[in-house]
Amino acid sequence: MQTILKGTSTEVIISPETPIVMIGERINPTGRKVFSAEVQNGDLSRVAADAQSQADAGAMVLDVNVGAAGVDEVALLPEAIRIVQDTVDLPICIDSANPAALAAGLKVCQGRALINSVNGETGKLAAVLPLAAEYGAALIALVMDDSGIPQTPGDRLGVAENILEAAQGYGIQAQDLLFDPLVMAVSADHKAGTVTIETARRIHESLGCNLTAGASNGSHGMPERELLNTVMLTLLGQVGVNAPICNPLKNGLAIRGINLILGHDEWGMGYISAYRAAQKNK
Amino acid sequence: MQTILKGTSTEVIISPETPIVMIGERINPTGRKVFSAEVQNGDLSRVAADAQSQADAGAMVLDVNVGAAGVDEVALLPEAIRIVQDTVDLPICIDSANPAALAAGLKVCQGRALINSVNGETGKLAAVLPLAAEYGAALIALVMDDSGIPQTPGDRLGVAENILEAAQGYGIQAQDLLFDPLVMAVSADHKAGTVTIETARRIHESLGCNLTAGASNGSHGMPERELLNTVMLTLLGQVGVNAPICNPLKNGLAIRGINLILGHDEWGMGYISAYRAAQKNK
Repeated sequence: MQTILKGTSTEVIISPETPIVMIGERINPTGRKVFSAEVQNGDLSRVAADAQSQADAGAMVLDVNVGAAGVDEVALLPEAIRIVQDTVDLPICIDSANPAALAAGLKVCQGRALINSVNGETGKLAAVLPLAAEYGAALIALVMDDSGIPQTPGDRLGVAENILEAAQGYGIQAQDLLFDPLVMAVSADHKAGTVTIETARRIHESLGCNLTAGASNGSHGMPERELLNTVMLTLLGQVGVNAPICNPLKNGLAIRGINLILGHDEWGMGYISAYRAAQKNK
Repeated sequence: MQTILKGTSTEVIISPETPIVMIGERINPTGRKVFSAEVQNGDLSRVAADAQSQADAGAMVLDVNVGAAGVDEVALLPEAIRIVQDTVDLPICIDSANPAALAAGLKVCQGRALINSVNGETGKLAAVLPLAAEYGAALIALVMDDSGIPQTPGDRLGVAENILEAAQGYGIQAQDLLFDPLVMAVSADHKAGTVTIETARRIHESLGCNLTAGASNGSHGMPERELLNTVMLTLLGQVGVNAPICNPLKNGLAIRGINLILGHDEWGMGYISAYRAAQKNK
């Protein structure tokens, strides 16, 4: 199954037969104090450089999020998207909890965007699915609903099935959805990793859908997070998570390594050129 | 299925339900110039320290190999095993291409050893299986035979089935075998990783057996080998390779990370203590 995203003139294919696609997560104030303060002052001067550095490090889609306390996302999100698309020709992942901001972003975004995100909550489905249908966008779908985050892979798969059914009511098909199996911190629950991995495996096998994940959530509270993120990205990559959201500057070489060992990188050229680029920037 | 190995007084269980067990690979002259020269002079003074450092880094079984040009392994291998067992109480993986040396090693080895290795070659089966039966040892079985290394997972599984059948003729059961799916360099063949991973998956699913692998073979000729070894150990670990042969001083934290995310490390205590130990040694 192919999920196709488009930038101004480029096309990115997410499928089990092609290399894992990195969605760059850096353009997001969450956890970035300086950027957060800037965004709150309407200052987007950092965005172009963040777009370029992630593209250079191998990101093939860029998440754009300007959500911070007091920010008018409806005004600022389209502006950030414009800056990113003026800088690099990559598909955009429009990231907001506010449906009006998503709509404003979709209006200006060139190509075929990815909406981040919908989930199984009744209100969320009603607000976001029509937007995806109207703009022909793809959608990230988190496997949680009005009852919260299910504890078991079976229940998470059930939420995924409900979302898919609701989406189909709007003419949105399985290949338009990237499911997120929800990575939780293993420091809080040592079985959290296995629940997420098994959820991904079952969604991939039952629905045939492509998947995304915020892999770094798994390592919160642990030392050597980059190593754990590599392990998590690898485990998830093997069960069908082929478009993770991550930091290309930190996880870029690991993703190329996974692609190499999973047979998606003839002669290892992708891995070696990523290694050389990383050495240059040291 | 449980494969049980024993040291002088300890027991190590290899099973899908328990954490991945590291077999320490360092006591081996291959690729170690100084140790190789020492072994050729009958000098085993380095062995005790190599045993201790690997045990400290989390090895639960120690491979012992003294094979180098001109070395009388029949005399030297038992001596090396004695030194290791005087130093640490871990099960031994007796490693030699020479059946007479294996026999000499088994004779002095305390506990239940692992023989490294048999394969599907007619002569090898005839020489090594009786030894395993006589001494009640477990066996590493490489999935190659008189025709060489099969190219496909299906053919490698076929060799595994033949080895199992031959072993059963000597009263050796499935739980006494650790199959090695044969990791080859991805730099030489970019599909090599997928063949090995699929072989492991099929042996684990069809025969229920535990598996070992020399994961670092996959990264030969590539930069940042440690990262690729982490990816390979993770991919193999997910499909049933639960007793890899590796360097605990380099791969120890990665193995603990895999155990953590696969749900085998409550509260992350194993991972955190390995991290602290590694920091101390820096």
